[in-house]
Amino acid sequence: MNDYLTEKLIMDRIIREALEEDIGNEDVTTNSVMRDYTKGRVKLVCKQDGVICGLNVFARVFELLDESTAVEILVKDGDEVKKGQLLAIVSGDIRVLLSGERVALNFLQRMSGVATYTRKVVKMLEGCQTRLLDTRKTTPNMRVFEKYAVRVGGGYNHRYNLSDGVLLKDNHIGAAGGVKRAVEMAREYAPFVRKIEVEVENLDMCREALEAGADIIMLDNMSVEDMKKAVAMIGGRAVTECSGNVTLENIQKIKEIGVDFVSSGALTHSAPILDLSLKELRPEKET
Amino acid sequence: MNDYLTEKLIMDRIIREALEEDIGNEDVTTNSVMRDYTKGRVKLVCKQDGVICGLNVFARVFELLDESTAVEILVKDGDEVKKGQLLAIVSGDIRVLLSGERVALNFLQRMSGVATYTRKVVKMLEGCQTRLLDTRKTTPNMRVFEKYAVRVGGGYNHRYNLSDGVLLKDNHIGAAGGVKRAVEMAREYAPFVRKIEVEVENLDMCREALEAGADIIMLDNMSVEDMKKAVAMIGGRAVTECSGNVTLENIQKIKEIGVDFVSSGALTHSAPILDLSLKELRPEKET
Amino acid sequence: MNDYLTEKLIMDRIIREALEEDIGNEDVTTNSVMRDYTKGRVKLVCKQDGVICGLNVFARVFELLDESTAVEILVKDGDEVKKGQLLAIVSGDIRVLLSGERVALNFLQRMSGVATYTRKVVKMLEGCQTRLLDTRKTTPNMRVFEKYAVRVGGGYNHRYNLSDGVLLKDNHIGAAGGVKRAVEMAREYAPFVRKIEVEVENLDMCREALEAGADIIMLDNMSVEDMKKAVAMIGGRAVTECSGNVTLENIQKIKEIGVDFVSSGALTHSAPILDLSLKELRPEKET
Amino acid sequence: MNDYLTEKLIMDRIIREALEEDIGNEDVTTNSVMRDYTKGRVKLVCKQDGVICGLNVFARVFELLDESTAVEILVKDGDEVKKGQLLAIVSGDIRVLLSGERVALNFLQRMSGVATYTRKVVKMLEGCQTRLLDTRKTTPNMRVFEKYAVRVGGGYNHRYNLSDGVLLKDNHIGAAGGVKRAVEMAREYAPFVRKIEVEVENLDMCREALEAGADIIMLDNMSVEDMKKAVAMIGGRAVTECSGNVTLENIQKIKEIGVDFVSSGALTHSAPILDLSLKELRPEKET
Amino acid sequence: MNDYLTEKLIMDRIIREALEEDIGNEDVTTNSVMRDYTKGRVKLVCKQDGVICGLNVFARVFELLDESTAVEILVKDGDEVKKGQLLAIVSGDIRVLLSGERVALNFLQRMSGVATYTRKVVKMLEGCQTRLLDTRKTTPNMRVFEKYAVRVGGGYNHRYNLSDGVLLKDNHIGAAGGVKRAVEMAREYAPFVRKIEVEVENLDMCREALEAGADIIMLDNMSVEDMKKAVAMIGGRAVTECSGNVTLENIQKIKEIGVDFVSSGALTHSAPILDLSLKELRPEKET
Amino acid sequence: MNDYLTEKLIMDRIIREALEEDIGNEDVTTNSVMRDYTKGRVKLVCKQDGVICGLNVFARVFELLDESTAVEILVKDGDEVKKGQLLAIVSGDIRVLLSGERVALNFLQRMSGVATYTRKVVKMLEGCQTRLLDTRKTTPNMRVFEKYAVRVGGGYNHRYNLSDGVLLKDNHIGAAGGVKRAVEMAREYAPFVRKIEVEVENLDMCREALEAGADIIMLDNMSVEDMKKAVAMIGGRAVTECSGNVTLENIQKIKEIGVDFVSSGALTHSAPILDLSLKELRPEKET
Repeated sequence: MNDYLTEKLIMDRIIREALEEDIGNEDVTTNSVMRDYTKGRVKLVCKQDGVICGLNVFARVFELLDESTAVEILVKDGDEVKKGQLLAIVSGDIRVLLSGERVALNFLQRMSGVATYTRKVVKMLEGCQTRLLDTRKTTPNMRVFEKYAVRVGGGYNHRYNLSDGVLLKDNHIGAAGGVKRAVEMAREYAPFVRKIEVEVENLDMCREALEAGADIIMLDNMSVEDMKKAVAMIGGRAVTECSGNVTLENIQKIKEIGVDFVSSGALTHSAPILDLSLKELRPEKET
Repeated sequence: MNDYLTEKLIMDRIIREALEEDIGNEDVTTNSVMRDYTKGRVKLVCKQDGVICGLNVFARVFELLDESTAVEILVKDGDEVKKGQLLAIVSGDIRVLLSGERVALNFLQRMSGVATYTRKVVKMLEGCQTRLLDTRKTTPNMRVFEKYAVRVGGGYNHRYNLSDGVLLKDNHIGAAGGVKRAVEMAREYAPFVRKIEVEVENLDMCREALEAGADIIMLDNMSVEDMKKAVAMIGGRAVTECSGNVTLENIQKIKEIGVDFVSSGALTHSAPILDLSLKELRPEKET
Repeated sequence: MNDYLTEKLIMDRIIREALEEDIGNEDVTTNSVMRDYTKGRVKLVCKQDGVICGLNVFARVFELLDESTAVEILVKDGDEVKKGQLLAIVSGDIRVLLSGERVALNFLQRMSGVATYTRKVVKMLEGCQTRLLDTRKTTPNMRVFEKYAVRVGGGYNHRYNLSDGVLLKDNHIGAAGGVKRAVEMAREYAPFVRKIEVEVENLDMCREALEAGADIIMLDNMSVEDMKKAVAMIGGRAVTECSGNVTLENIQKIKEIGVDFVSSGALTHSAPILDLSLKELRPEKET
Repeated sequence: MNDYLTEKLIMDRIIREALEEDIGNEDVTTNSVMRDYTKGRVKLVCKQDGVICGLNVFARVFELLDESTAVEILVKDGDEVKKGQLLAIVSGDIRVLLSGERVALNFLQRMSGVATYTRKVVKMLEGCQTRLLDTRKTTPNMRVFEKYAVRVGGGYNHRYNLSDGVLLKDNHIGAAGGVKRAVEMAREYAPFVRKIEVEVENLDMCREALEAGADIIMLDNMSVEDMKKAVAMIGGRAVTECSGNVTLENIQKIKEIGVDFVSSGALTHSAPILDLSLKELRPEKET
Repeated sequence: MNDYLTEKLIMDRIIREALEEDIGNEDVTTNSVMRDYTKGRVKLVCKQDGVICGLNVFARVFELLDESTAVEILVKDGDEVKKGQLLAIVSGDIRVLLSGERVALNFLQRMSGVATYTRKVVKMLEGCQTRLLDTRKTTPNMRVFEKYAVRVGGGYNHRYNLSDGVLLKDNHIGAAGGVKRAVEMAREYAPFVRKIEVEVENLDMCREALEAGADIIMLDNMSVEDMKKAVAMIGGRAVTECSGNVTLENIQKIKEIGVDFVSSGALTHSAPILDLSLKELRPEKET
Repeated sequence: MNDYLTEKLIMDRIIREALEEDIGNEDVTTNSVMRDYTKGRVKLVCKQDGVICGLNVFARVFELLDESTAVEILVKDGDEVKKGQLLAIVSGDIRVLLSGERVALNFLQRMSGVATYTRKVVKMLEGCQTRLLDTRKTTPNMRVFEKYAVRVGGGYNHRYNLSDGVLLKDNHIGAAGGVKRAVEMAREYAPFVRKIEVEVENLDMCREALEAGADIIMLDNMSVEDMKKAVAMIGGRAVTECSGNVTLENIQKIKEIGVDFVSSGALTHSAPILDLSLKELRPEKET
């Protein structure tokens, strides 16, 4: 489920920058007291139930510091883990284990937090055909990690950035002079690989978008009743999306609407971390 | 309260990377329908009560895209803002306003979320002399923004990274062969600008750290009673810190302990965003 | 027709690298003989009929060297220009004009070459509804410039990179265990913004792709007869593409096939440049 | 014939940027259908007669994606290869082979195109002592690859960039106040490692350059007769260069002139690619 | 005594830039005459007595060029080495040995120069408790190397940069409105990990700084008599520093003052290099 | 005498890195006590007689921090300046003046140190035709600044890096199989813009180099008598260089030898800085 090339090409740069941010010019504490190489190992332990995500990134932090570090991973991304569960064992130079700890956990806890929160919402949607989407409301420069975590949690990705999808909002429609003209212009500009999504605010706009041949119609700020009518009107001729809070209170309404997708910014902008820690760092005899 | 040089030297690079992440090779939607320059303006509006933080970063996103964009800021970092309040007006090429919107909000919402959460905890601590500290549990590559937001919220910063503070934990102490020796080694290595903090787990270690001349003593995993005894034993000869959940339930205990500082990772790793949006984008006559 | 943000965010970096490549540590010739600022101007002149493209990039080269350079552009991207025609006048420090000349022309000549070649092929396709597509067979690190030049020439863009489009080829299909399963897997992985294109080699595969719900079907290595049958079978239920040499000889066949798009790698990998030059560099009185 | 350090220090960065350009944030197609590592191999096959060039760069693309990829190279840079000839076999993770294919071929085809075109021109010059030079009319950021390809094709390199050679053109001469003064100024500024080349437009200038002690004299825009006279006048006291189209039509004239070098921008700015492809990608049993 | 992570994270980037600076696009001499791999070895020999420093950096230069290069190091950083002494043997591709030589020596000679000069000053201070500090007067972008060399020479580091220490000078004090207020403001802004140093110019300011609770007091431009009085007044309640030329002439005075630290910019800005060279490069039989 | 493009393209990057090195994430002292913009000015004053060099770089440091900073420069690069002389006045935000001071001086002091030392050696050579050359023994990543300072001091530049000059040393000659063959190989590899220099150790090698057509002959480790004979033998048919300590003691010998150039590594690797300082920082009324 993991993508080696993305890690190598994209993530490595970001991980390296995070290490530079955290280490500065030296780990002055470790350098003070540990002058020599000592082999050791430390356990990655779960302190809270949740969905684990980012294990390769966690390992990569240590490997980028010292390629001789070994990370034995005992679970896999997407697994539901329990408080107290042993997840991995990291072995290598104790100084590397100490200096890399914080960055490794900062990535892993945040990615697992997003996956855990996503899984929870996905479960709330069980029993209906509506699928969960993320948004571009991600942490700056963390998108590749957070969108991956959404997939691991069971959600789906909306467009990655402004290049890989057309989403015509009210201002675009206004500039073009109407829904029909906006869709035509987008189709003329990018006729081939890109689907065209239109954000509509009422049934008239929805009809216009449908007639203009929109591939996806996003129902924005409409009442539940109107959204139901819109879905009925569309009748499968376009993919449907609505956005909004997927909470216990309004989940029933979303299920009734019958849209194909519901998107939620909270998956990436407000998920609390999953608590994890490195424990029992011990020197280890060389074998 | 804001630091122009940090923005210019450090933040600009991170903002630019975030723009590249979000824009990719082009904003295909805007390019489809808006071929010509149109001057316009849009309002930054608060959708939730909280503490605003990051207004210069918000403005900088648009300026880096197009230096002719003008951002009129109506509040200042640290202000308590209310739902519905108008916070700023951004004027410029409508295409720039549309293409920069998401990144500008992603920064501002997150920074304001951290400041809002920090302010809430600071208020819980009112009436005692214990001050609130952040940690290194920040989002990778967002530390400079998040530590600033903590200060804006009323908290204080613990060390920025591993270079600018000595914090001797159990493994460092073990490697050195005891608290006393660890402090000596740190003082020998970095005798001048750096304070030396020692993490202690019981009263004996605390006494040893005190006698070794630690500047700061961190009380870790100790009972409230023991922490009180430790604070009494230290008697102002070292700064004291404890870490842990600052919640309504345990706030009374922290107050009783009388430590100088309490640190909280949640300030930066689990604060939800403050909801903000850009509204009423309108074309505007050139003057 | 031009995208200011892409230029600023993406192109500037590449232009700057090209300037570093060409200038090295100094322009030793100019530094030898021109110790003082002298204002001057030079004309950009066409030496060959063709389609001009990249005028903003041309200007940007000089502006990045010295922001006080002024470039007066007399035509616009996409215009058909004639041998001997004056296209632009560049004014500024003569040393900047001399040191930037080669890089500015290297970009402009190549982009104009691509646009010119594309326009020629587009004209050959006139009178039928088949539209011309580019490919990813671009010069390394020049894609953003070359894909823009294709659009200026009248062509359309296929996917920009491996992230923004699904294109299932024989090896992907083999790995998935068949066309149907491959389309399902792609739809499960990326159900929302991405269209799914399938490359088929015969009518059976074409039928299977159609039934699996492919958005785009690429007819690869098929006879003209079979392609005609395929287009008839598809009947507008998917977009159709064929690839191959669009030459005078086979243009008639392509027109007969009736596919929606024909793609051509030669647009970007083998277009010769359009010959342009800077002429009559003259000192100029300050006004 | 290949330079390991240049590859490592200079080319790696450019190759990595090209991979980022082409892969974006992920290869969505491959990630959709190939979840697991599968070992495989693919053949590099020639589709057109020509001179192969860039095999190490081709291999490096795959190695930078995944260092465990093995590339068995069956020919060497500069070899004349035939349509249908097997040139190399790439073995490794099939996902790496698929994701790296396009970038690897984009480099190899372009470099081989330059080498092929250069070889053709070099053969036209056989039988006379005039040697072929490239120019700075290279593709932006591809110079290190293209100048290498010219050498592989049998040509020689003119200066690499503006730092490593003095070439006094009419504007430099005008600014200095004459050929003699320009040469003196250049010699004063850079007396040691740099040869000084002067571009002359008639016999008087040529004589002046010769007397001023120019190391190289470039005959620009002169008639064949005048160039012959210039070469005779110079009589080996300076190296001679002329520029211009080296085509079948004018090759005889160039031979008659007897200059030491003829330079051609077309070698790098207008050579069509050499057609190559990866074929028969097959899973392979692990040994 | 050496820090692997700092080398990997911080130094590698700087070494790589230095290699790019020195190699440019190719080592044209080596490429001219050495077309094939030849294994060889070369000796690092001392040409002057001194303190060696930077051996890992020296080795790293060759490893970054070619990871198969082996560097056998026969001494260790901080050792006093003698003219003629063999310090290390570098084995690998002779072309790598030749192309990396200059950069490797440029680092090693400079670092050893700083260590040698520092050691000399440290010896002059023997017999008193005053310790030697460096400053921020380092070579741009060489600070991490030079501060390390100071430690290796027996000195201590003052703050690394403007982030990791508070040093209130006259202008800061003026802006704050007095010593007391300046210290309060610094303590409020950065109360936790940072020590606060105040630069004072007379006994009154010294008293004020002491009363304000400064952690470190720097005695600037004061007479020896006044400095003695200041040290007596402070009486161990703050760390004391003076700056200035530590020469044979004034060493006795410094010893009499009894400050804790004396800082010297010359350690890093004016130490001459230690002369070292690579000798007896010889081809070597493969084993 | 200064080169705007080099500054913009090459130096800016290095200056920016130096600022990041020195400022880290913030100037914590300045941020503590100076919350608001205050306009001020500060004087650049000479503390030692010497040759000033690097004034534009000095100014650029402040401009890169804040483009509204104004630097009035009262002398020019190459001027001989006296202790106590006012050299420039910097006006702007006092916080910028404080935060940029150290980096601006670190560049200016070092460049002026190199220029001062070079000038001194140049004066020792007055009265003979031998000119002074620098080497590649520069501080890593400071070459562009240091080579410029050598020219400002009156010296000349040897090759900038390994790309822009051929220098055949004993190992190259050994690998080629003799001086003659080495020169031929270099001429074949790089026949056009590059001069070919050969390092010779005795009269036989010198004769061989001369006969092989070397452009420059470097006399290495030869006695004064032999060098005189070599210069006589060469008789102007090649440029001559010797290397070595240009001190008062051996200057007379060098003059007698009559070589064209003498090169000295000490110019860049061991010149002490020129002492300069910023003084009398004062707030200033806005006009």
